[in-house]
Amino acid sequence: MSSETSVTVRLGILGCASIAEKIVRAVLLLPEIRLVALGSRSLAKAQEFAKRNGLPADAKVYGSYDEVLDDTSVDAVYIPLPTGLHVHWVLKAAEKKKHVLLEKPPAHTMEEMELMTSALEKQGLQFMDGTMFVHHPRSAEMHRILHNPQLFGTIREISGIFNTNMESTFGPTWSQSNVRGQAHLDGLGSLGDLGWYCVRGILWAFDFEMPYKVIAHPGTRFNDAGVIISCGATLEWKDGRTATFRASFLTEMVMRLMVMGSWAVLDIGDFVIPVKEDVATFQFNQGSAWVDRSTGWTRNTLVHEVKTELPQEALMLREFAQLVKGIITGTGKPNPIWPSVSKKTQAILNIVKESIEHDCSPITLS
Amino acid sequence: MSSETSVTVRLGILGCASIAEKIVRAVLLLPEIRLVALGSRSLAKAQEFAKRNGLPADAKVYGSYDEVLDDTSVDAVYIPLPTGLHVHWVLKAAEKKKHVLLEKPPAHTMEEMELMTSALEKQGLQFMDGTMFVHHPRSAEMHRILHNPQLFGTIREISGIFNTNMESTFGPTWSQSNVRGQAHLDGLGSLGDLGWYCVRGILWAFDFEMPYKVIAHPGTRFNDAGVIISCGATLEWKDGRTATFRASFLTEMVMRLMVMGSWAVLDIGDFVIPVKEDVATFQFNQGSAWVDRSTGWTRNTLVHEVKTELPQEALMLREFAQLVKGIITGTGKPNPIWPSVSKKTQAILNIVKESIEHDCSPITLS
Repeated sequence: MSSETSVTVRLGILGCASIAEKIVRAVLLLPEIRLVALGSRSLAKAQEFAKRNGLPADAKVYGSYDEVLDDTSVDAVYIPLPTGLHVHWVLKAAEKKKHVLLEKPPAHTMEEMELMTSALEKQGLQFMDGTMFVHHPRSAEMHRILHNPQLFGTIREISGIFNTNMESTFGPTWSQSNVRGQAHLDGLGSLGDLGWYCVRGILWAFDFEMPYKVIAHPGTRFNDAGVIISCGATLEWKDGRTATFRASFLTEMVMRLMVMGSWAVLDIGDFVIPVKEDVATFQFNQGSAWVDRSTGWTRNTLVHEVKTELPQEALMLREFAQLVKGIITGTGKPNPIWPSVSKKTQAILNIVKESIEHDCSPITLS
Repeated sequence: MSSETSVTVRLGILGCASIAEKIVRAVLLLPEIRLVALGSRSLAKAQEFAKRNGLPADAKVYGSYDEVLDDTSVDAVYIPLPTGLHVHWVLKAAEKKKHVLLEKPPAHTMEEMELMTSALEKQGLQFMDGTMFVHHPRSAEMHRILHNPQLFGTIREISGIFNTNMESTFGPTWSQSNVRGQAHLDGLGSLGDLGWYCVRGILWAFDFEMPYKVIAHPGTRFNDAGVIISCGATLEWKDGRTATFRASFLTEMVMRLMVMGSWAVLDIGDFVIPVKEDVATFQFNQGSAWVDRSTGWTRNTLVHEVKTELPQEALMLREFAQLVKGIITGTGKPNPIWPSVSKKTQAILNIVKESIEHDCSPITLS
């Protein structure tokens, strides 16, 4: 076996989803990971995708997902398939001893989630979900501010909103044509697709401490297939902290996370995907005060800029590759943090869904 | 009687609350309204207030509220007393045939609210609550945009947050020393003081159509006196529109109203009291789109500026004075819009409180 530093993680991709184009581009930016195989149910589609996205000439292009998993030159797979197909292919990947980077939301239920992560864990394989924003250096910078009590005080509440108008992006029949509108493919709808990020951002800000009570908001909307297209929920922690989120396919873009502390507020207007790739911003507000007779107020807003040489998806892939490399070379073990944070996020989504199905009853977590 | 144009409405004020200083300053800017009397439980306090705030030399200063109401030279009163004292003094004002401009929240219960507004109505007197922002020309400008379907599409959801750290403004013992922490004075706490504006903003954006379901968020916080110091709720309309608001005395200032439509978003970061007195802004977002491979997105933000010659509280007083003048001169009648919007706002607050008291049960409006 070659020395650790020269090991390159060999990646396979299952499917030609549009998000895979972004991942391919990111892989090509990284020396530590190499794209060696791509599979699609249609060989022609895979070949066209490979050509259009500049796959390396020696990358193998298959007309099935199984061939990618059977390929012994593949160390790890990226799975951007619809959620409804995850269990089947992740269990197969575990059987074939491939590490897995899985698009979100990972599952429709916690049972599925546990099946997948425990299968990988038993084989000593790394699991990571495809949540990119936590890998951006902006997140690390914000985390330092949030957890500096002198600066921020106590985090008291969080508001997350991720809305985007699917009709604008995919046309008026998106609900039939896009996987996000189909119960067997993306059964959690806007809750899984957009709410996932809100919940992940909320848990991230609270260092992944779980809430003890969750309540869905009234007014959940469904499409004709019964898939959630607009929803929201409020979470409560034992010490009185709260977080509220909204996730809708029906409005103009809103992608905001606001973390409200006793002495300061962090406000991120593009928390999931920064508007620009090379520099991301966030606002820090502190020390607002009423002016004379409350006829106005001082708003002290500092705009922080955080540059990044690599886009956040490349930083995610680099983190994944380093863990896989460690396992391959015997110097590391699967990092349990990644399945853990993924399971916590998934658990909240499923509890919100449960509350929706029970007329917005509060659900207490055991 | 003098001709209508030369009639000046003669205002009395009950109490020396700090908000009264702002109103006095506004009255002094307006030719159509004249401050003729001020009463406080302490004559010395009233005299000191009169001197400090430049009351006209001929304004009468009384050591009781009753003397203001008994003064036949007073046409209308502004009542900035704590909510718990409103019913008593508004009923007396109605008896003494004074028009009433009442600080918010008007009441602790809908019964109180109805008592006050019907007493005034029976006497042919105008009622208006002290919500200033709706009188700012910015609100009229935003209303035009919101209700232009070509520009905005359908309003789908609203998010209102009004938080302010009372400890920063009034010190660590605010909960004992400030009226907002005391059950008999401001019994609705942050729900009445801050949530009032969120609910008013939400109803305003929806042209005062009432929701059909209201649910309080879990995690309501109370002070030692049992007064709400942090809360939130979500409202649902029959056609699936929703609105979520938060109101807390425990965080750094947030004063945001976001109205989310299918094609556009209005975002107002200082909706209750504009940061600056002479010019207020709001943001209009439209036509956001993902860039290639969703590696970023275009955010199209237009910042609108709306200038005003008079501060919003003076515009409120002018509107009130014009109505009172019409009634006095016999050319107008009490405008029922103002008690109506006030009652609707109050009703929502009381339903939110009911939901809080019933473990966040959804309350359906009859």
